[in-house]
Formats: sequence, C-alpha cells, structure tokens
Amino acid sequence: MSRVYNFSAGPAALPLEVLEKIESEIYDWQGTGMSVMEVSHRSKEFVELAARAEANLRELLQVPDDYSVLFPQGGATMQMAMAPLNLTSPTDVADYVVTGSWGKKAASEAAKFCNAKVIADASDKNFSYIPDEASWARSDRAAYLHYTPNETIAGVEFHFVPSGDVPLVADMSSTILSRPIDVSKFGVIYAGAQKNIGPAGITVVIVKNELLDKARSSNPHLMTWKSYADSDSMTNTPPTFAWYVADHVFSWLKSKGGVSAIAKINERKASKLYAAIDSLEFYSNPVAVDCRSWMNVPFILADATLDATFLEESKAAGLTNLKGHRSVGGMRASIYNAVNEEAVDALIAFMTDFQNKYG
Amino acid sequence: MSRVYNFSAGPAALPLEVLEKIESEIYDWQGTGMSVMEVSHRSKEFVELAARAEANLRELLQVPDDYSVLFPQGGATMQMAMAPLNLTSPTDVADYVVTGSWGKKAASEAAKFCNAKVIADASDKNFSYIPDEASWARSDRAAYLHYTPNETIAGVEFHFVPSGDVPLVADMSSTILSRPIDVSKFGVIYAGAQKNIGPAGITVVIVKNELLDKARSSNPHLMTWKSYADSDSMTNTPPTFAWYVADHVFSWLKSKGGVSAIAKINERKASKLYAAIDSLEFYSNPVAVDCRSWMNVPFILADATLDATFLEESKAAGLTNLKGHRSVGGMRASIYNAVNEEAVDALIAFMTDFQNKYG
Repeated sequence: MSRVYNFSAGPAALPLEVLEKIESEIYDWQGTGMSVMEVSHRSKEFVELAARAEANLRELLQVPDDYSVLFPQGGATMQMAMAPLNLTSPTDVADYVVTGSWGKKAASEAAKFCNAKVIADASDKNFSYIPDEASWARSDRAAYLHYTPNETIAGVEFHFVPSGDVPLVADMSSTILSRPIDVSKFGVIYAGAQKNIGPAGITVVIVKNELLDKARSSNPHLMTWKSYADSDSMTNTPPTFAWYVADHVFSWLKSKGGVSAIAKINERKASKLYAAIDSLEFYSNPVAVDCRSWMNVPFILADATLDATFLEESKAAGLTNLKGHRSVGGMRASIYNAVNEEAVDALIAFMTDFQNKYG
Repeated sequence: MSRVYNFSAGPAALPLEVLEKIESEIYDWQGTGMSVMEVSHRSKEFVELAARAEANLRELLQVPDDYSVLFPQGGATMQMAMAPLNLTSPTDVADYVVTGSWGKKAASEAAKFCNAKVIADASDKNFSYIPDEASWARSDRAAYLHYTPNETIAGVEFHFVPSGDVPLVADMSSTILSRPIDVSKFGVIYAGAQKNIGPAGITVVIVKNELLDKARSSNPHLMTWKSYADSDSMTNTPPTFAWYVADHVFSWLKSKGGVSAIAKINERKASKLYAAIDSLEFYSNPVAVDCRSWMNVPFILADATLDATFLEESKAAGLTNLKGHRSVGGMRASIYNAVNEEAVDALIAFMTDFQNKYG
C-alpha cells in the first residue's frame, strides 16, 4: 500500500481508519453474509446504522431537538434549489451574501424560484474578503438570508455568524464538522458530504422543524424536505453505501474527541500553513487575514512559471492535488479533518525546500 | 468469509468478482495512492472511468449514437418528476400504463406537472396481469407514454414493447441489463442502479437527443437532463463511488458474454423457479403466465401460518431476503444478474425439502 498526502478540495481524503473498516466488512457486514451495499435499506441492520449516524451527527454538532437531520441525494447544488422551493413563494424576497463562486451559484439558482437579492458581493476584489456586515443591503422582509460560511475555491471563511432575525440558510459543505457551531442560530444548514462527511452522493441537511411546513405543494416529491423528515430519509432508496461511510466517519470523529478537539487541530494546521506562506517570500495568499479559511488554503507562487514544476515535484514527493481551481490559478491545499498534521508539516517542508532549490 | 444467497429486491446482490475488485483497490486505486472515493471527479483517472463506464453500457445495450447516457442522482423516483418536467408543458397530456406500484407512483408524481392520464390500470386484479394493449385508452396527442417494463413488487414483466409513435418512457429499474432491448424503440429509459447496475445512489438515464430541448426553463438545474448531457454528467460532483462500482459491474457483465448471454441464464433461472412453484403444491404464483417477471418471483405458501417458519429456516440455510413486499405478503425471490443459477437451485432444493418436512 502506497498512500499519499491528499490535498484534494473534494471528493477529498478519508481517514485511513475508515478505509480499514470498509475493507474489513466488504464481504460480510455485521454478520449478514452480505456487503452493506447488498442489503435493503429497510433491513434491521441498516435502519440501525441510519439511526446511529443521525444520533452521532446530532451529538457531534449538538443539534437541538427541534431540528430535523436529513440525508438526501444531490449534494449542495440540489439544496440551492430546495432552499427557495421549501422556504418561499415565488414573490418572496430572499437575501444572498455572495463571497465566492458557490454563493454566486446559489443566488443564481434561487433567482428561478423567488426574488433572490444579492445584498453583498465580494466579486469586486476577486472574492478575497467579506464585505463589512454593516454594509449589507438587507431587505425588509426577507424569507431568509443565505450565505456560504466557507468558500472552497477562494478560501474565504466566516469566523462569525451573521446577526439578524430572519432564518439563516448556510451552505456549510466545506466547513461542517471542522469546528463547533451553534446550530440554534441557523434555520437551515446544508452540506455535500465529499469534504468532511464521506463519499460524494449523500448530503446532510439540518432544518429547524418550524420551517418544514413552508414547502410548495408543486415541488417534486424529492425536492421537499418534509418528505425526508417524515420518513427518516427513506422516502425512496437512499444512497446506502455513502451513508454507511458517513456513519464510520462520524464514529471516527467521536473517537478523536469530537468537533472541539478536531477544531484545535484544524486551527493549528491552518495557522502553521498560513505562517509558512506569509514568511516564505516564494508564496502568498490573497485573502484578507480576518477571513482566511481553515479548510482551503490557496497560495500563489511569486514566479508563476514555476507552477508546473511545483506540481510535478510535489506529486513526486507524495503530495497530491495541490493545483488551484482554474478560476483562481496557483495552488490550493485543502486540509479537511482527514488531512492530518503530518501532511501539513510535509507540505510546509516541501514548500521550504522548493524555495531553497529555486530561490 | 461467510456469504449467503441474497434474494433482496434492492439494494441487491453484487457479483463477488466486483466486491473483490473493490477490496483490492480500497487504499490505492490505479496507483494514485488514494481510494477512488478520495479523488476528484475531474481527475484524469476518474474522467477515464466515467468514459469507460458509458462506453461499456452503450456497448452492452447497443445504445444508438443519437441517444445520450446520463448518470444523475436521485434514483427512479427523481426521474418520475424529471420525465414530465423535461418532456411536457403544464397543459400537455402524458399517458400512463399502470401495472404495479411503481407505475402508479410515477403517474401520481407526473400529475403534479402535466395532465397525466392513466390509460390502463391493472389494480383491479392486484397487479397480477397486463391489460390487453388494444384496450388502452390512449390519448390523441400524448407527449409520451410511460410504463414500467418490470414491476418489482408484484413481479409483472412486459415481454413485449408497446407499439405506437409517441415517445416511450420506461422505468427499467428492475429489468435493465437482464435481457437485450431495442433502445431505438424508446424515447427515454431510466433505472435506479440498485438492482442490476451497482449500489444505490446513481441512476442511469438514456434519452433520445431530440427530446433534450423540451425541458422547462423553470426547472432546478439538476432536474434538467440537458444539464447532465452537456457536462458528461459532471455538472455537479457526481456519486463517484457508485459510478466506480457500476463501471466494474459493466465490465463483469461483458466478461460474462454481455446481455444476450446473461439473458439466457436469467430465462433459465426464472423458468426453473416458476416450474418448481407450479409443480410443488405448497407454493403458488398469482401472476398471469404471459407476464411473469424474470427478475422478481413472488410466491405464496398454501398455508400462510408457515410463513414465519419458512423465513426462519431459509435464513438459517443461508437463503436471505425472501420475505415478500408488505403490500403483497408471502415470499419474493429477486433473481437479478448477480444471483447465479446455484442460488436458484439452492432455493428450489430448500422449497422442496420444506414441503416434504411440513407437508
């Protein structure tokens, strides 16, 4: 087995311990004589798995009892439509704070279904900052305020929760489970799995129950949150294997001390990587210091002609998926929960060596 | 490793050879040093996998060049909404032939979006037959005709393709890849993966290209087939692991001689099981002989008080998931491609012994 340090933005690294579990259960899961992929979602064993996964996620995020936890398909992109379809009528206003590509996409999708207003937009500085909250042009009667607590591409993260009394809807795909959050401050939290939860193909949605009755009756059955809330997310056949891996990831995170413990590690990983970028003259990060992401760290080489060499040599050194998003260029290290401190140390050592070699 | 004979209706048995592939690649897929779950869907390796899976599926089903092959999430249930949302405007008529629970569900979902007319309905005899095609009350200008070539619950299968010149839309979830089909006779074929394709969480949709331009502009982005057709099904992060398993299943099926070869085995498996049910006085199958399913074989014990004993003893003998759907009762053996002839022989032997023991 030759494993690499994997800095992929998503689908992303999984804990080795989780892969070991998958391997050990591939032919015979829980004594059933079947793989988990081969059993009915309505079997006793799978229903127990689903209940445990939900209970562990609730414990990890301290989800209040008046919230439902749903596991639909379709990723965050599907939720970009489901949010307006479940929370508005066509003439309602919804406020969107756009601090990156994903927020922009969410606003554009919502505009099909309601009066989606972009009330703050950081595209003027290439999504490198968060506009001062006092400057947001908030609507008088917004059905909700949508924002993206962490933008995966440009690496911009909110280190605060916006204020106000309209329901907050947050796309937490690339930050969920990386640090404690106060769920009670949100109306809806959604996240694609493929960063901190498990394999692509399952989505986590946490909804305050009082918001479940606003869905449009014209929605496709699977576009209504209540369909999932009323059926323990088994209104149709769920993505059982992805759910199973997520269950193992939640157990792994608990075994590591939970979200508070991993947050300390995440903060340390990010701090040392930004410190290296700031101190090594070969590299820079364009994001305002107060909103640099703990999870996605883009950096640019002072000499862009060395980009290809950097990628080639880092890959040869066992550090993969460091290429930045095509819209930003340069490099990006995604350092989710499953990317351990050793990986970050190896990256910093490589960056230092690379500067010494080519500087 | 203690494997059982798995007669689950879905999620269902996978070929052992496919599980062996998954096990062997779990830590290091194609020399990447990562599991396939941990690599970007836009990586060279995954893009190659996706292209190979599509090419093999096209070869297996002999899909004509003027059809697109899509791999969305959401299963057949999502397609029950996507069909009308991609093929009709709200006042259009669509014809539905209802020969079981899934067809009924499809018609009911479509009624939200267009004038969905049930033109034939076999519920009067508990979905045990297919109404004579000449009796179908077809509409003059239907946008399409929807039917369910195999109904998983009652075990009713069309051994013919309906005639006519409106586009046929077929939910082939539990029959796809079990026998050759003439794709050119269809407008749209859709199928959830969890029977003959792979794990739950990925869907196959085969659409005639000329039908791709009828989608409503008000659709959520992910509810429009063209979004997938224009992006090689990567308009958002796809369910990469499920796609990977499907790719292995397609390769396995090719190694077995393809769809014609497996169809011969499937016909033989079904024939011998129905012959046993018809000849053993302990058992009966309620479905009209001309539309008995090759894939899902329900059977009823003459003495229903023995149901629990039958399930208990069959499980102890390593024959699992034989309980019939709650709406039908009795037993059901689902004998998809991955359920080999040995499993069917073992089931028949058990049924014979059981009759001898309790008769």
